[in-house]
Amino acid sequence: MGKILFTGACIITMDEEKPEYFTGDLLIEGDRIAAVSERAGAIERPRAGRVIEGRDLLLMPGLVNTHGHAAMTLLRGYADDLPLQEWLEEKIWPVEENLTGDDVYWGTLLAIAEMLKGGTTTFTDMYFFMERAAEAAAEGKIRAVLSRGLIGLGEGGEKALREAADFQRNWQGAAGGRISVTYGPHAPYTCPPDFLRRVMDEADKTGSALQIHVAETAREVEECKRQYGSTPVRHLHRLGLFERRVIAAHCVHLDDEDIEILAEKKVGVAHNPGSNLKLGSGIAPAARLLDTGVTVGLGTDGASSNNNLDLLEEMRLAALLAKGKAMEPTLIPARQALQMATINGASLLGLADVGILKEGFKADLIALNLKEPQAAPLFDPPAHVVYAAAAADVRFAVVDGEMLVEEGRLTGLDMEKIIDECNRRAERLTGRSLKKP
Amino acid sequence: MGKILFTGACIITMDEEKPEYFTGDLLIEGDRIAAVSERAGAIERPRAGRVIEGRDLLLMPGLVNTHGHAAMTLLRGYADDLPLQEWLEEKIWPVEENLTGDDVYWGTLLAIAEMLKGGTTTFTDMYFFMERAAEAAAEGKIRAVLSRGLIGLGEGGEKALREAADFQRNWQGAAGGRISVTYGPHAPYTCPPDFLRRVMDEADKTGSALQIHVAETAREVEECKRQYGSTPVRHLHRLGLFERRVIAAHCVHLDDEDIEILAEKKVGVAHNPGSNLKLGSGIAPAARLLDTGVTVGLGTDGASSNNNLDLLEEMRLAALLAKGKAMEPTLIPARQALQMATINGASLLGLADVGILKEGFKADLIALNLKEPQAAPLFDPPAHVVYAAAAADVRFAVVDGEMLVEEGRLTGLDMEKIIDECNRRAERLTGRSLKKP
Repeated sequence: MGKILFTGACIITMDEEKPEYFTGDLLIEGDRIAAVSERAGAIERPRAGRVIEGRDLLLMPGLVNTHGHAAMTLLRGYADDLPLQEWLEEKIWPVEENLTGDDVYWGTLLAIAEMLKGGTTTFTDMYFFMERAAEAAAEGKIRAVLSRGLIGLGEGGEKALREAADFQRNWQGAAGGRISVTYGPHAPYTCPPDFLRRVMDEADKTGSALQIHVAETAREVEECKRQYGSTPVRHLHRLGLFERRVIAAHCVHLDDEDIEILAEKKVGVAHNPGSNLKLGSGIAPAARLLDTGVTVGLGTDGASSNNNLDLLEEMRLAALLAKGKAMEPTLIPARQALQMATINGASLLGLADVGILKEGFKADLIALNLKEPQAAPLFDPPAHVVYAAAAADVRFAVVDGEMLVEEGRLTGLDMEKIIDECNRRAERLTGRSLKKP
Repeated sequence: MGKILFTGACIITMDEEKPEYFTGDLLIEGDRIAAVSERAGAIERPRAGRVIEGRDLLLMPGLVNTHGHAAMTLLRGYADDLPLQEWLEEKIWPVEENLTGDDVYWGTLLAIAEMLKGGTTTFTDMYFFMERAAEAAAEGKIRAVLSRGLIGLGEGGEKALREAADFQRNWQGAAGGRISVTYGPHAPYTCPPDFLRRVMDEADKTGSALQIHVAETAREVEECKRQYGSTPVRHLHRLGLFERRVIAAHCVHLDDEDIEILAEKKVGVAHNPGSNLKLGSGIAPAARLLDTGVTVGLGTDGASSNNNLDLLEEMRLAALLAKGKAMEPTLIPARQALQMATINGASLLGLADVGILKEGFKADLIALNLKEPQAAPLFDPPAHVVYAAAAADVRFAVVDGEMLVEEGRLTGLDMEKIIDECNRRAERLTGRSLKKP
């Protein structure tokens, strides 16, 4: 059983029973955290295994990305600064029609490479050809919560639902338990009530959770009101969707009653501040949701509407936007932003032993380099992570006890090959040639 | 005369007479760009000098930071998530009272180290002990636009003004022309009309430009209206301030008439989206200002309200915020955001031969690493820079023809020593000990 000891590092555990941060040791045995000490040098050095000097490292839980479409990396930078409908209908959807399983496999690997290098140790995905995405997740050794995206308009709904059920059966708990499967009805506007009922029935057979896009744009809310006489949140509530664990992505346009319902039904919200800004969707009421007791995590959404998969950036954005929007600098302080990116994310994804550095929890953690100008002076480590740190500061990333990023480099994935494959596929899919110097 | 050739790089020149980007060569001779070619391999390799293979590089003008308080790096992370007045009055000002010239020297060096590593080749500073800041800028070999901050309340105004005049005389055009000096009346609310008239008289003796904080908070605007019967912009306009070149920092709270005045008087606006969000000041109408013809550049403000000095991040924020605030994804497209960070900044700082990669212009440029997952696929280099690139992607930074960052490392500054010095000073100034692992 592999052992890794980080010694003398600055540690942010996110464990409420511990000081907010301290200089100490952390020992990994197998896939679990075996010990955390508030005293540097207190944990005996393992006879077999690795010892990493923590003097210039900040150790914290790995980041949890609660919403995305991983293989959309293939369309990164393909269509920017466009009105939402033109972007979707003229650019994204026509290309997605030609996606193959291999494309999804390679595009997902590219996303995983970027996320691991940026400190994300768990990601969430709702897309197509999910068996191939799952293969990529298994190969990348990252933790993953995967859904086959389900659209209930037109013909393909039942077939997609059968695929989703097969996917659940084949992949739930796979890759040593690192992969979990949820059902992914795309949105109220693409899944009519009868179809949503079918999805719920299927999901309930296995007690699976759901992920769904909710109230992303003002237009969507208006159309839902016109069609169903209520907001997307109340519409879904009335259908009984929230009687199971649900991850509601976006939730940009909510009224007071919506927020109360999300809190009461313990719906988890995946807040995607970067994508919501870039597509002109608006600014979600993240601070109010948190205040009302909703568990809010963070997501990057797909790379074609972001355009990177940098969860540190989303954390910073979430904290800054809340303050700037309300003109109130005390909203979403650093500690709360860190919670969103770690324990909140793990909690809303149903990962009970992830998101805190604590004995017995999964060894999913990252170590940030403190030897950079932006880390000095280090008055307040949580504020450093939220307001100053960058994805490139990630020196080590560990998932399930395995070192996946070491000194900033991927240990298990061939980044050059992945980039080459993705470039070729991006060209084929779009019919455009990439600027290659 | 030193020569550096970048060959076969992806080049964004910001030159309107050239294609938006192309694969080509760029030759530096001495402190100037000697040639730019749209064909890779077209420029003859210099017999003496360096040749840098550009295959994985994106070459573009260095970033121009149009507003900041460099030595406030010493207070990075010292006080976050607080109401503005408490932050200023209880945290920042008491510490600033004890600042020494040496503190400013080292704090400015730390800022320069961070900015160069993140691709900023020109910075703007308004602070105290500016001779020492200028020494740091000269030593760091970065381009700098410096002002002694002037406050006209209480006793010290005249003395400060004399110091500002001495500073102008001693440092304007120094360090091989890399340093220019402007006058820095802090803000309308700290500089009464009589004092502002004195500042204008002094500045006019040397034809110097001014930098000033304008309409940063809603409260400031309300107080200005109460005290002077008009908005800060109209108040300054009536005093005749805008008859000279002025860099107006922030401009968050403007009405239509204010915007018209800024456009008509060709006032340059330094937009600081990160700091404005973090302090809860609000979101400046950057897209409207640009539409009305105002030259808007980007600034980081001080590190204690940001908390990093990452201008790529400010560029991304400016583009995203404009879209999200107005729910209009076509606002501030990538190209315009790039202009803000380069030619707009140079223009409003009065640097006529900076901000474009063009024969005869100053060799102030950066090269970003394209061999990272977030740079693939590279459909649109400008969109990559604005929406996906990161400070750590900066592999080379050149100022005035000198290579200051090489393979991501500072060539001329001792980063470890600077960090150590700043840590000691930060502890002394605040009386708090830093968490040192």
